[in-house]
Amino acid sequence: MGKGDINNSCNPFEVQGSVNYDKLVDEFGCERIDGALIKRFEKLTGKPAHLLLRRGMFYTHRDLTALLDDYERGVPFYLYTGRGASSESLHVGHLMSFFFTKYLQDAFNVPVVIQLTDDEKFYYKEKVTLEEAQRLAHLNAKDIIACGFCPDKTFIFTDTGYMGTMYPVVAKAAKMITFNQCHGVLGDNIMANIGRVFYPSIQAAPAFPGSFPMMFGTRKDIRCLIPQGIDQDPFFRLCRSIAPRMGESKPACIHCKFFPAMEGPNSKMSSSSTAPSTIFMTDTPKLIAKKVNKYAFSGGQETRELQEKLGANLDVDVPYQYLRHIMEDDLRLEQIGQDYANGKLMTGELKKICIDELVKIVEKHQEAMRHITDETVRHFMDPTRQSLKAFSMNNLRI
Amino acid sequence: MGKGDINNSCNPFEVQGSVNYDKLVDEFGCERIDGALIKRFEKLTGKPAHLLLRRGMFYTHRDLTALLDDYERGVPFYLYTGRGASSESLHVGHLMSFFFTKYLQDAFNVPVVIQLTDDEKFYYKEKVTLEEAQRLAHLNAKDIIACGFCPDKTFIFTDTGYMGTMYPVVAKAAKMITFNQCHGVLGDNIMANIGRVFYPSIQAAPAFPGSFPMMFGTRKDIRCLIPQGIDQDPFFRLCRSIAPRMGESKPACIHCKFFPAMEGPNSKMSSSSTAPSTIFMTDTPKLIAKKVNKYAFSGGQETRELQEKLGANLDVDVPYQYLRHIMEDDLRLEQIGQDYANGKLMTGELKKICIDELVKIVEKHQEAMRHITDETVRHFMDPTRQSLKAFSMNNLRI
Repeated sequence: MGKGDINNSCNPFEVQGSVNYDKLVDEFGCERIDGALIKRFEKLTGKPAHLLLRRGMFYTHRDLTALLDDYERGVPFYLYTGRGASSESLHVGHLMSFFFTKYLQDAFNVPVVIQLTDDEKFYYKEKVTLEEAQRLAHLNAKDIIACGFCPDKTFIFTDTGYMGTMYPVVAKAAKMITFNQCHGVLGDNIMANIGRVFYPSIQAAPAFPGSFPMMFGTRKDIRCLIPQGIDQDPFFRLCRSIAPRMGESKPACIHCKFFPAMEGPNSKMSSSSTAPSTIFMTDTPKLIAKKVNKYAFSGGQETRELQEKLGANLDVDVPYQYLRHIMEDDLRLEQIGQDYANGKLMTGELKKICIDELVKIVEKHQEAMRHITDETVRHFMDPTRQSLKAFSMNNLRI
Repeated sequence: MGKGDINNSCNPFEVQGSVNYDKLVDEFGCERIDGALIKRFEKLTGKPAHLLLRRGMFYTHRDLTALLDDYERGVPFYLYTGRGASSESLHVGHLMSFFFTKYLQDAFNVPVVIQLTDDEKFYYKEKVTLEEAQRLAHLNAKDIIACGFCPDKTFIFTDTGYMGTMYPVVAKAAKMITFNQCHGVLGDNIMANIGRVFYPSIQAAPAFPGSFPMMFGTRKDIRCLIPQGIDQDPFFRLCRSIAPRMGESKPACIHCKFFPAMEGPNSKMSSSSTAPSTIFMTDTPKLIAKKVNKYAFSGGQETRELQEKLGANLDVDVPYQYLRHIMEDDLRLEQIGQDYANGKLMTGELKKICIDELVKIVEKHQEAMRHITDETVRHFMDPTRQSLKAFSMNNLRI
């Protein structure tokens, strides 16, 4: 692992064990998102802050204050996020991050670009063919679209499909990154093939508006905000470090903690894991109930008597942590938390509430998926469509 | 410099001093092109071998015998060559190699693909912008077209312009090359930026027919022959080494010695050199005469008396070496060589003959250039044109 890793068990390739979320602030120069910044979000957008923001899941940033300052002065920005397709279906943790990006799109009325990194999966997964990575990327596009992104303001692309337009910006980024910088940030993982060495320039390029000439023309004044999991920070540290020499603005970043795996609160839900506990968006209500009841790590006590006497430890209780991610109603969540911590609520009852909320999200997603055809995907992935150009032309004035 | 370099003063980036041409055979496993192989060329094509072949400038190969065996059995092949645009105009040495490729195209009636490596120049030249490299590439395309390539069988592309189609094959090549392999073959030069590390996969891709779906569809049975300067052998050693694991045929190679610089027979004419001695295809007859008279290293004697007595050393005489590259008439060349070696011909007379031959080539080229418009270039660089597809469909049957 590289010396630049966030901690000993977290890099873009591997997340295991306990995660030290303070490291981004303490060692890598990120700033915390505090109450004042959240209030500013609400004032600027006229909307309540997203639950992931007000409950501290999106917890650190780089240059977000400067981006909001610019936004107030009328400087436009766009959102950039991505997905490395490693499974046929997304899990509920993936959806969180896309829900948040969609909230930002609606709240600020800005374009979103979504990179499906089929090439990266191909470079990193020994046995995955490029064709398989491309197939998974197109499947994942449906799940992403189902999160409700606006068709006129959203461009989804695979690296292999969009490289023709993007390569000049990729090349300009690549020229700025020395091998040693890349190795320092990403570690020995990159040695296995030269695609891995080059890949950071491909992830960097969409952070610069020149990668989307059909939306932004040759404008350089448009800023970029990248909602991301903390494991992606090494890539964007590299990206930000080269921006000035490229004559580009540094993209702003906003970092999300991991959606925990069933097995414990300080882990990350994985789609490539063979663990049977991951909640996929294709799961039936019955399967979700089974997974939560069987695998979800509980902070409650062993018996009814003990629970009534001692109450639950909310910090380590996975079903409660899930509720914090997905239950919209703050008051209800607080009541549930109090009752559970005080021993009024049993573990089984809490799990039942969690299952109901998960089922609600999954069923809503499955309903949305029913309306998404190959034609819908083609629309979102078409860089030439008029609506995409028109939105940018009409809304990104300074 | 990398341990895999051809010799201590020759790698793809730098050629200086004396070149050991035997090294490709003695250390890197190439085979010599002998009289029997040249006869086989003539028999197969029904045409006399090109002068660069019969006079030993194209002198070694990899798998050429196997490619010709296949060709005899009806397996089609295509030619792949390239140019790294580092100057506005080509020099006479560049033209040699394109003349030879055109001869092969005509003799075997096969398609040619020509890669203009604008990205490579950008990665390697500190001060060259991508836009400047692209501009030079398009200028150079005109010179290349002027060599007489058949419009229906020739596809010229820049890497930045064609990456959209080529990237899937580039990615498949990149996954097969470890950083250490790349470093071993190309040396510390690649450390300066990750574009350089990745670049070998971009030069490898056109050696596989999948890079040209509009010409070859999904066929894997079409072979590739790459005429090249010996300094490119490291790239194609790497390319050949990964071919089997990609499920592709190894491309065959045929290597050319360098076109000597004026200053000496064991050097390479350079277009990026600041030396004023290079013969550019834009030079006037007067300028060519001046350059030859002033700079061309002579194997003749100092005075008329000594020359009549001792004669000239043909091996080191640059004007004579130039004649060997450009004078078509074998008998006349032999007579000139004898007369000069025997002291019947003076250095000034030989230089005059050389100047006349150079002027003939340059003027013919300039005349051809007058007919090449931006429209012509667009035609040669258009991957969608019907004629390109039609030729491949009709002629590349097995």
